[in-house]
Amino acid sequence: MMKTINKYAELYRTELLEKVIPFWLKHSLDKEYGGYFTCLDRAGNVFDSDKFIWLQCRQVWTFAMLYNEVEKKQEWLDFALQGADFLIKKGRDEKGDWYFSLNREGRPLIQPYNIFSDCFAAMAFGQLYKATKHPEHLQIAKDTFFNILKRQDNPKGKYSKAYPGTRNLQGFALPMILINLVLEIEHILEPEWIDKTVKEGIDSVVNKFYHPELGVILENINTDGSFSNSFEGRLVNPGHGLESMWFIMDLAKKSGDNALIEKATKIALQLMEFGWDKEFEGIYYYMDEKGYPPQQLEWDQKLWWVHLEAMIAMLKGYLHTGNEQCRQWFERLHTYSWDHFADKEYGEWFGYLNRRGEVLLPLKGGKWKGCFHVPRALYQIWNTLEKTTKNQSPSA
Amino acid sequence: MMKTINKYAELYRTELLEKVIPFWLKHSLDKEYGGYFTCLDRAGNVFDSDKFIWLQCRQVWTFAMLYNEVEKKQEWLDFALQGADFLIKKGRDEKGDWYFSLNREGRPLIQPYNIFSDCFAAMAFGQLYKATKHPEHLQIAKDTFFNILKRQDNPKGKYSKAYPGTRNLQGFALPMILINLVLEIEHILEPEWIDKTVKEGIDSVVNKFYHPELGVILENINTDGSFSNSFEGRLVNPGHGLESMWFIMDLAKKSGDNALIEKATKIALQLMEFGWDKEFEGIYYYMDEKGYPPQQLEWDQKLWWVHLEAMIAMLKGYLHTGNEQCRQWFERLHTYSWDHFADKEYGEWFGYLNRRGEVLLPLKGGKWKGCFHVPRALYQIWNTLEKTTKNQSPSA
Repeated sequence: MMKTINKYAELYRTELLEKVIPFWLKHSLDKEYGGYFTCLDRAGNVFDSDKFIWLQCRQVWTFAMLYNEVEKKQEWLDFALQGADFLIKKGRDEKGDWYFSLNREGRPLIQPYNIFSDCFAAMAFGQLYKATKHPEHLQIAKDTFFNILKRQDNPKGKYSKAYPGTRNLQGFALPMILINLVLEIEHILEPEWIDKTVKEGIDSVVNKFYHPELGVILENINTDGSFSNSFEGRLVNPGHGLESMWFIMDLAKKSGDNALIEKATKIALQLMEFGWDKEFEGIYYYMDEKGYPPQQLEWDQKLWWVHLEAMIAMLKGYLHTGNEQCRQWFERLHTYSWDHFADKEYGEWFGYLNRRGEVLLPLKGGKWKGCFHVPRALYQIWNTLEKTTKNQSPSA
Repeated sequence: MMKTINKYAELYRTELLEKVIPFWLKHSLDKEYGGYFTCLDRAGNVFDSDKFIWLQCRQVWTFAMLYNEVEKKQEWLDFALQGADFLIKKGRDEKGDWYFSLNREGRPLIQPYNIFSDCFAAMAFGQLYKATKHPEHLQIAKDTFFNILKRQDNPKGKYSKAYPGTRNLQGFALPMILINLVLEIEHILEPEWIDKTVKEGIDSVVNKFYHPELGVILENINTDGSFSNSFEGRLVNPGHGLESMWFIMDLAKKSGDNALIEKATKIALQLMEFGWDKEFEGIYYYMDEKGYPPQQLEWDQKLWWVHLEAMIAMLKGYLHTGNEQCRQWFERLHTYSWDHFADKEYGEWFGYLNRRGEVLLPLKGGKWKGCFHVPRALYQIWNTLEKTTKNQSPSA
């Protein structure tokens, strides 16, 4: 049975190395001011030149990761450095917090209200340091990481609009990203920091944000872990939960915690059931746990990253547990994604489809879509499929 | 020709008085804590109890306006007072700024980062004062109005995320709302304040945000009035522009400025041309002036208020100028809206359709849709159609 899916390994490898990476190498370099253009139309033409720190960092990460994990190609490392140099010069305010966006020249546009800029910066410079061993890259990764820990209880600072005390919610995004970040930069952290952050993160995701009686991971919970019957509290983002489940599978695999792998696989399957659009296929972007109308008008759209992260989760669940439902979901997601997101003509994938699976925005990159989820997922899927080939049978 | 559209007057009157107003009277009262529920499903059941200041204020305004303009029904005035009393007790912080939202009990949830809460509060208490002559209502309307003027150059205060100096934009929403607000509360303002605000507002809308070489009203422009080639600068919200055009027609009618009426009608027609979806009908929610992918994922959706405001603009344009294109657009919008937004079964109108005109969220009220655009538009259309009946021929 495993053979029926590992036949795809070559497909994902060539898509990554021949279609997606060349697209960014060719179109996204800003030779004049440094950094990358990320607002690229279907064919790769630049339609806006603002520079969003999330996407600048993620692109540095992607090329450094490819250099570290796939092949020591100087072109890839140089490309990562092109972004890193721009970020070093222009990306931070005087406190070392990372801006949200810059204009093309690198002048700050949007203040550091968003701590995820810092998370992606720490990932980028941690991954880059692996390649360069440059002490400045190490220092930036470390400083940024400890700055995130310092800010994590009040990540928005003065930009927070919530009135203190009325409805104290904690969000899923930060603990989820921290467990991934710690995995990413474990080579530069003291083991006790890693253990502490991983333990707290996993506990938070699996025992607090996952509510077994509802069968979903909630995006926001009360600070005591209970359900908040509000727009924020009822919000479910199935793709977000699925992404976190493969992070947890990776962590559990490293520590040999098979029970945790089983649990993460089970939760991922519940999220697939909950999030799947039975009428038009694909996974909804946002849902209300009680089935009420969500605030997000884009709730029924089908987003590239949701489907890619879901594929990784299903494939890793299958690799580790042999669960047949995981294989079936992987096949279904694979078919849907190649039919709707992949662009045979120009390379890279479409990002935004309407509920029916038709292209909603004909862009390859924008304010939120850059060079990250597509290459990371193609790499993860290719790599996981090769492991299944080596094992020939699922390993728990 | 005019007769072919004034036949609709009775339809809009009965829809307002027999279908829409009864829906809110029956379902939206919070008898326990005061104020209104606005998150109502198709049948009127409450699905969330948070109280959004925009919508609380707009509902007070609507019932006070009906009392003042349609009939001195005590039930309507009592219903407006029910919301006003809650707002007086719970709506403001110690500086007199209006919160964005409260929980059901009235404890603040979201801080006063949004000056439009204050705009709708001034409208509500100005309209209410007309009915009650209560000095407290007058005082709140006045204090709030002058507070808005004080805050208008930095409306978001410390919540502004823009880095000062890199890209200084001015937004269309505030000048647009101010010209409507001044019309609304002219009975409580000194004539020099009215003249000043109206002159500045009209100049700003017609000579700065409207760019004749593009044929659209832009949502954001550089502080010198020039076009900003950025996501924000390219953004067009056709419904927003159309709404402002009927505000300007009303102002121009009062001052007898026929050239301004002609100009507003011409701009409104350009916006209809620009915003109309030639494939599936209806008006797009957001567009990029250059045709690039907009940031807003909900860009292609069809929203209730856009179509209602467009109908008012086309009808007033027709009433004042006799322009035949206005009449044709009104008929087209009328047909589209009654086919897609009106709900014959439960009353009130649907708010959110997908591009194809199918219901996207089956709600009658939510975080942004309350008791405002539907009743205001039904009243304005009914009233304007009756004027056309009296005149029998278009008056310029």
